[in-house]
Amino acid sequence: MSRRPEDPPLFYRAHVFCCTNERPEGHPRGCCKGKGSERLRNYMKARAKELGLKDVRINASGCLDRCELGPSVVVYPEGVWYTVRTPEDVDEVLKTPLIEGGRVRRLMMDAPASATPSTAD
Amino acid sequence: MSRRPEDPPLFYRAHVFCCTNERPEGHPRGCCKGKGSERLRNYMKARAKELGLKDVRINASGCLDRCELGPSVVVYPEGVWYTVRTPEDVDEVLKTPLIEGGRVRRLMMDAPASATPSTAD
Repeated sequence: MSRRPEDPPLFYRAHVFCCTNERPEGHPRGCCKGKGSERLRNYMKARAKELGLKDVRINASGCLDRCELGPSVVVYPEGVWYTVRTPEDVDEVLKTPLIEGGRVRRLMMDAPASATPSTAD
Repeated sequence: MSRRPEDPPLFYRAHVFCCTNERPEGHPRGCCKGKGSERLRNYMKARAKELGLKDVRINASGCLDRCELGPSVVVYPEGVWYTVRTPEDVDEVLKTPLIEGGRVRRLMMDAPASATPSTAD
């Protein structure tokens, strides 16, 4: 289910979803809100505005179901997921994927095989 | 910012976001929640589960900023937007984009030019 030539243009060049789901304290899976995701999302939204990023939307979302790896952030249309723990992590996601169109490997949840250290001698 | 060959595989084959934002009654832009979006999202989530749809996630989200056209639903990675007003609309989005990989033109927010009636004689 990728884009088709006849699909309308993307409404947002980059559409970011930050999980802000909260679970009861002590839940075995934890939750993104318990790891500060709401504050980080608010910071991301404010910084995107300050930077004048056009055609970019920073949304809060319900549980993205990757709780153990959170605070969870997914950037569409590329569908790349990041663990965003600090304001510095937010800044890096704004700079690299959203401004430069790159990827932040050190924060990526599903690191490509080529990015994992080799086990060969 | 489309997908790159080296990007990790998509975590969800289809990732659906349903705006459930609420604004105060009488707000000039209206809101998706005021048009029943929360109930529709819950129905969509339950039906997707009943249908056994794999690798599909139906999320609630904050304001997607297309309030006037809501209840707003966007399907990624294709980034196609739908106005979903009834359970029948939900069923059609589940069947056509999520199961068959197609598009539901009658519900699409940004109809491609080829879908608009010609003004020529």
